[in-house]
Amino acid sequence: MKSRLLGLLALPLLLATQAAAIPPPPLPDPAAQLRDQALAGDTIAWDLIEGLTTEVGQRMAGTEAESRARAWMVRHLTALGFGNVHVENFDMPVWVRGEERAEIVSPFPQQLVVTALGNSGATPARGIEAQVVGFDTIADLEEAPDAIVQGRIVFVSHAMQANQDGSGYGPFGRARREGPSIASRKGAVAIVIRSIGTDHHRNPHTGVQNWAEGVRPIPAGALSIPDAEQLQRILRRSGGPVRMRLTLTPRNIGTRQSGNVVAEVPGTDPAAGVVLIGGHLDSWDLGTGAFDNAAGVAITVAAAHRVMQAGRPRRTIRVVLFGAEEVGGNGGTDYFRRHRGDNNVVLVAESDFGADRVWRMNASLAPANAALGRHISWLLAPLGVVRGTAVANAGADLGDWARAGTAAIDLNQDGTRYFDFHHTPDDTLDKVDPAQLRQNVAAWTAMLAAVANAQEAIAPAPRN
Amino acid sequence: MKSRLLGLLALPLLLATQAAAIPPPPLPDPAAQLRDQALAGDTIAWDLIEGLTTEVGQRMAGTEAESRARAWMVRHLTALGFGNVHVENFDMPVWVRGEERAEIVSPFPQQLVVTALGNSGATPARGIEAQVVGFDTIADLEEAPDAIVQGRIVFVSHAMQANQDGSGYGPFGRARREGPSIASRKGAVAIVIRSIGTDHHRNPHTGVQNWAEGVRPIPAGALSIPDAEQLQRILRRSGGPVRMRLTLTPRNIGTRQSGNVVAEVPGTDPAAGVVLIGGHLDSWDLGTGAFDNAAGVAITVAAAHRVMQAGRPRRTIRVVLFGAEEVGGNGGTDYFRRHRGDNNVVLVAESDFGADRVWRMNASLAPANAALGRHISWLLAPLGVVRGTAVANAGADLGDWARAGTAAIDLNQDGTRYFDFHHTPDDTLDKVDPAQLRQNVAAWTAMLAAVANAQEAIAPAPRN
Repeated sequence: MKSRLLGLLALPLLLATQAAAIPPPPLPDPAAQLRDQALAGDTIAWDLIEGLTTEVGQRMAGTEAESRARAWMVRHLTALGFGNVHVENFDMPVWVRGEERAEIVSPFPQQLVVTALGNSGATPARGIEAQVVGFDTIADLEEAPDAIVQGRIVFVSHAMQANQDGSGYGPFGRARREGPSIASRKGAVAIVIRSIGTDHHRNPHTGVQNWAEGVRPIPAGALSIPDAEQLQRILRRSGGPVRMRLTLTPRNIGTRQSGNVVAEVPGTDPAAGVVLIGGHLDSWDLGTGAFDNAAGVAITVAAAHRVMQAGRPRRTIRVVLFGAEEVGGNGGTDYFRRHRGDNNVVLVAESDFGADRVWRMNASLAPANAALGRHISWLLAPLGVVRGTAVANAGADLGDWARAGTAAIDLNQDGTRYFDFHHTPDDTLDKVDPAQLRQNVAAWTAMLAAVANAQEAIAPAPRN
Repeated sequence: MKSRLLGLLALPLLLATQAAAIPPPPLPDPAAQLRDQALAGDTIAWDLIEGLTTEVGQRMAGTEAESRARAWMVRHLTALGFGNVHVENFDMPVWVRGEERAEIVSPFPQQLVVTALGNSGATPARGIEAQVVGFDTIADLEEAPDAIVQGRIVFVSHAMQANQDGSGYGPFGRARREGPSIASRKGAVAIVIRSIGTDHHRNPHTGVQNWAEGVRPIPAGALSIPDAEQLQRILRRSGGPVRMRLTLTPRNIGTRQSGNVVAEVPGTDPAAGVVLIGGHLDSWDLGTGAFDNAAGVAITVAAAHRVMQAGRPRRTIRVVLFGAEEVGGNGGTDYFRRHRGDNNVVLVAESDFGADRVWRMNASLAPANAALGRHISWLLAPLGVVRGTAVANAGADLGDWARAGTAAIDLNQDGTRYFDFHHTPDDTLDKVDPAQLRQNVAAWTAMLAAVANAQEAIAPAPRN
């Protein structure tokens, strides 16, 4: 016991000795103070997520529900004291869901849970019936002779795996984004894929897909993951053809109006440029879009509000809540087209990956802004955030700006469970962890305060 | 370091000294050997669950699907070598699900996910619309003046908590079992409850309820838990009346046939009596009934099969796979009515609580069978099973026997996550953990081998 006791007694002494070697703390950093206040007690972000998901619910792009969401946001942004609150409308084509049923006719009759993918073609109201042909991966489908696909319902069962950085979505998502066009080209009458997700619940994952040039739209759906695994077992155990009846009756309802909601924290120095941030206001229709993306709306608004409450920043912070991200990024595209020539946006940052903790920052800043980058890293380190080395892409709605050379910062959220809920009925308020949400607001507040008040010019990131 | 090193060196010595005081192990116990073989490599139980849930799927009582399940089981029990495989049919009234929709009309228009409770009354096809009146608990509903309930849709939001022993189901389940009759008596036009469950997914929990004597059936549904929490928020935020449109169109389709599937492991000594075990073959219609109760079917069949493979036991083991448990225990009632006079059943045991590990045994045995009880406890201890002190109730289908005084053993499964899936679309194969399933088969095999081969008479449990 003696040696252990001695060790314990020595520890405080050792720490005291080390502490003496560390320089005294710098003067209080206002951004650090704002960060700590957000972490300790932000309630605005939660209130916004709860309000938007409860009082509006789902906010499918181009529908009346999305328009109610814009009105709701304008009301709340105005009440929060933001300036220049307005909506910039745009037109878009709108696709809406219809009936959705999948049934194994033989050899093992049963219902499966299915949902249509965005822009899916429609079956007749009575459905279509055909033999199912299964593929383990999208590559297997690509390599298959047309003859085994023609007249059949294609099924792709590739199972997405969860990664913290969300990097599975690109490669596994091909089954959703490209599978329908590949299947149609080969003569399939329809396609059902295993949902692009990482859960095991009877809630299918929808998501957009676009028909390749010249390809005839066919019915395209996603089975819930338990149902996809069931279909794999049915194919394995059948010993013969498996026939499915599929009913998907979505339709295109023509041109409708969507819009981007804009709000500003006015800066003291118009020449210093604008910091442009945001998330998207629309959601898929199956859930209430709490993670995707009431969270991004709430985090960016709450952070900008905290900076505003501390006094006017040097730079204007503009928050844009984009319409119609899910169905094709129409809002981001419209905003960039309309404002790319304004020449005053110095940095962009978007939040569109849920509400779990920020774990990494990637910053695309000019070499001249290295000190600013270090300052933000220092502010984020106490929140457990590491500095990454990748190019910041600024998300789906602000990516055009980053690709055009505007400085960008990504605050990456932990995506380990993001694809458990993504685009499903299960994307609801109960999935948001209040403590992790506050950490997001704290990280965004610190970053925004630093960027908006930086005395140095913020220069474009070096082009690759 | 010295004293710690010395301690580590001393440990094996100490264990060796203690071991010397323990008597040498007894001769190999055949039941222990069977237990260990099941734990290491049982595949029959998994194959049965996978086969039944894949090739039949849902098995709603009294429907054609349940009859396919009986045929499937007869085929597989025969192939496994069981004796006296047959079906004992009975008639029953059948209720089937129709359309199911719940919609908040005002002030926050949106869809909620709902499912009808068993024996729910029906709305017209176009639904009914009424104001919602919310109650935190069933007691609050009971105490409410009729005037605030009349003409309204009652909502009960009491939140069930998960317990390892499943003890929440009784008290929280009152909202489902009694809520509809209480609401109808008070003049409600319908009732929706928060699902009796412990998950947070958009999958509502159905379950049976029976109308109290003289009560007029009204539409009775369960909201998924996220939707129930949403409705609570809507009521809290509305500042005025909340109106719901509810469409539930189930119907009674009259008398249909159900049945109990029976199979036996014939014993060598007919005078020693029969050990009667089983689970239920029917499931609710929303999922494929993997936990509830393909698991119980598979565990009891696999365990009986293992005992059979080891050579004929002294006592006959009879496995009964009951029909129509979910909707009222019709199969168990019919079996007891038909066979209670046979006078040769010496012990009953049922598996109907999923497939997570057995954690406790309760045994209701005569004092003369204390040694048998200790033997079974000794066999189960290496599986992590403790001995409980409660009366064994033998489950819904064999409970009549236990209540009539037959000896009974309960092998309690861990119910911590049982009510995450119970009676929902999510009760599917992927929820079954193969390792825990094998532990179940091992526990049942050991218990069955001990009971079926016990040389002493198995006497009725003492009556309370």
